[in-house]
Amino acid sequence: MTKIITAPLSGMRDFLPQDVRRRRYVIDIVEQVYSSYGFEPLETPVMERLETLLGKYGEEGDQLIFRVLKRGAKLEQVLGGRPGENDLADAGLRYDLTVPLARVVAEYRAQLPRVFKRYQIQPVFRADRPAKGRFREFCQCDVDVVGIRSVSAECEILSAGAEVLCKLGFEPGEDFVIRLNHRRLLRSLAKHAGIPPFQEEAALVAVDKLDKIGVEGVAEELHSRGIPQEASDRLLEWLRSTPDVPAEVLAGLEEILGGSADGETALAELARILKLAAAGPAGPALRLDPWLARGLSYYTGPIFEVEIRGFAGSAGGGGRYDDLVGMFCGEQIPACGFSLGLERLLLILEERNLFPSGLEDGPQVLVTLFSDELALDSFRLAQDLRRQGFRVDVFPEPGRYGKQFRYAEQRRIRIAALLGPEEKARGTVILRDLARREQEEVSAAGVGDWLRSRLTGDLES
Amino acid sequence: MTKIITAPLSGMRDFLPQDVRRRRYVIDIVEQVYSSYGFEPLETPVMERLETLLGKYGEEGDQLIFRVLKRGAKLEQVLGGRPGENDLADAGLRYDLTVPLARVVAEYRAQLPRVFKRYQIQPVFRADRPAKGRFREFCQCDVDVVGIRSVSAECEILSAGAEVLCKLGFEPGEDFVIRLNHRRLLRSLAKHAGIPPFQEEAALVAVDKLDKIGVEGVAEELHSRGIPQEASDRLLEWLRSTPDVPAEVLAGLEEILGGSADGETALAELARILKLAAAGPAGPALRLDPWLARGLSYYTGPIFEVEIRGFAGSAGGGGRYDDLVGMFCGEQIPACGFSLGLERLLLILEERNLFPSGLEDGPQVLVTLFSDELALDSFRLAQDLRRQGFRVDVFPEPGRYGKQFRYAEQRRIRIAALLGPEEKARGTVILRDLARREQEEVSAAGVGDWLRSRLTGDLES
Repeated sequence: MTKIITAPLSGMRDFLPQDVRRRRYVIDIVEQVYSSYGFEPLETPVMERLETLLGKYGEEGDQLIFRVLKRGAKLEQVLGGRPGENDLADAGLRYDLTVPLARVVAEYRAQLPRVFKRYQIQPVFRADRPAKGRFREFCQCDVDVVGIRSVSAECEILSAGAEVLCKLGFEPGEDFVIRLNHRRLLRSLAKHAGIPPFQEEAALVAVDKLDKIGVEGVAEELHSRGIPQEASDRLLEWLRSTPDVPAEVLAGLEEILGGSADGETALAELARILKLAAAGPAGPALRLDPWLARGLSYYTGPIFEVEIRGFAGSAGGGGRYDDLVGMFCGEQIPACGFSLGLERLLLILEERNLFPSGLEDGPQVLVTLFSDELALDSFRLAQDLRRQGFRVDVFPEPGRYGKQFRYAEQRRIRIAALLGPEEKARGTVILRDLARREQEEVSAAGVGDWLRSRLTGDLES
Repeated sequence: MTKIITAPLSGMRDFLPQDVRRRRYVIDIVEQVYSSYGFEPLETPVMERLETLLGKYGEEGDQLIFRVLKRGAKLEQVLGGRPGENDLADAGLRYDLTVPLARVVAEYRAQLPRVFKRYQIQPVFRADRPAKGRFREFCQCDVDVVGIRSVSAECEILSAGAEVLCKLGFEPGEDFVIRLNHRRLLRSLAKHAGIPPFQEEAALVAVDKLDKIGVEGVAEELHSRGIPQEASDRLLEWLRSTPDVPAEVLAGLEEILGGSADGETALAELARILKLAAAGPAGPALRLDPWLARGLSYYTGPIFEVEIRGFAGSAGGGGRYDDLVGMFCGEQIPACGFSLGLERLLLILEERNLFPSGLEDGPQVLVTLFSDELALDSFRLAQDLRRQGFRVDVFPEPGRYGKQFRYAEQRRIRIAALLGPEEKARGTVILRDLARREQEEVSAAGVGDWLRSRLTGDLES
């Protein structure tokens, strides 16, 4: 027999019960918080038309698509010619939840409210090189407001995102910060520094690396990208003199950009976000960072990124993208969203031991099976306990108690309920606490009460 | 601008908020019931190796696979030759949750308990022709016991499946029945009727249609499949004389099959299932149907199928498949499972109006925005109410109250909280019940209490 590979595909993961529970713990909090902010759930198919996916994030984005092969006659037809990869495929797996949202808004405009606040928690797929913490199938937790031009949308989203982190045990400002910027502010700064429009993107990509490579690194990067020396010097001077306190940052920028319509609008929007978000949990976490660029070129307004102290890379981010939805319905529809880095958060929670101890939801009680004759009694007992709300397993076949106890321990079941012919005759059940190796004979009617007190005490201890 | 198609792909669906809520309502019940029976959650990737998927259900099964195109150099290499569809693809989307379970059991045997009881609720994909109620992406709710040879496993699974249906509002025996049979019983019957082994499968497929085409239809079908007349007559005679009461069915079969080892084992197992499952919610629903075959050839023991009265087609089914897991690890591992037809159940619940009325979990309160100056106050009020557990939306920008109320109604928000300069000065909030068109001015501290009483009353009414 040849060896069969049973590991999941590269970059993909199986989630065994304990993994699923931890993921659900986080997702439950995300859902509860997002719906308290008035967001509603949406789900879309894993597969989308290839044309829906292509060209939304440039060529680099297109390379990340898992393409689904055409079938039957359509496939045979293209195989007759000299097919390329887009000829062979007619669908692809979604690589994010934003493009599907844009498609949904275009498709169901008549049914959806004018302002659509949705959250969506589903897997996405990227044909990327797998690495530590980088998967080919991973879960995204997105929250977006579609249809609002005012930065109220940003405030709601930042508050909701920050609240999720608070509920997971992170202190705003202490354990995490949210860096905030505005694409139009960035563009104004580049323009005022004297960077030619065609080099703007290149300069901003360099500046965005400030965190990783420092001011000197950025200087080198600007030079190697051919940015004119004078413009580069001016940018670097502003970089070096950026203060920490948001109000001072705003004042300094006002001085640089006074008179630029784009710059002033951006500054006013940022000031408003800082003011209104102060009402919620994002307040203590917000930092104004005029050099944050975020990679994706589709952002058109405020942008933000979550950083967890002591953890490299972002744990979430987002911003305003007023043009994407329009690509599907031919009319500009403002939108703004935030994507929480669920996979990274799970890693951090695990590393820092931040999962609560009571996550276990495996069975609590094993009803043993004494003999075939008593099987019906064991099944009845199990049913009765389930009706009372306990999670109960029944041992599958008659066997020595020692074997049945070992099975329970292997499945991490705390209590065994023993029902042999003597107990049956006396109308009792023996309840054994397998962890403490103690047991007690209890009247059949009292089993539920005994379990309730024992299992609750267990949770408290 | 060319018309962009924004509908989901054929056979795939977008789930808008109300759809998601209804799906979650059912899924929550499934999860709660299955974990009360000691099943634990598992999740596996959407994509599997092509070789994992191929050949598990014959050629017909292979045709249902959505293949994922190879990428980069690997693709170019095969395009140089004369590629077929399996050369072009290196992965496919899972078409069920049973093959991934078998793979997982083989892969993680050292970590998993000897008996693995798992449930798994995830989408599967089939490149089938879409039709009413038949989708290309749909959700499966599977529950399986791996590692138990005794029919205790069947009893647990039948009880858990039946309990889900009860919790959804279906009465066992009244609204639904579970037809039960055994593959080895079927085979014994075919053998005793004198059907040559090579025609067994063909004969059983014909007999399985009894429900749809009646005894005469089966007779024709047997004839057209070339089953010898004498054998066919014997089968038809048994078919005609099958009683309704399980005990009588068993007695009748005993008479026919007495002495056949296979037949007797099957009858003993069926009798045991009927006896033990009587302890749980499946009891009143179980019907012995010696002619139930179920399509999939991988079943090896008891098989069962759920029928909802007044609804054609099955709403779930399953059975024992002791050989599948072994295909991945070279050793026979017994297994038995049940798959609930979630999509069909959703249709039936909708048709019969069985969804509870309180499913709505959209925002309950809209905090209005009087002016930019008062925006911070509105955001603070919203945050305060969210902390108290309410689902709250804030109107995005200052505007006439009429417009804000219309927005609330469109989003089905029941209460508007008005906070203008006069209310602010008096330390109050005006709470408006938009359905009743009544409003009341309440002290800021009393808003939570007012909402609690109003929104609870709403649920009760």
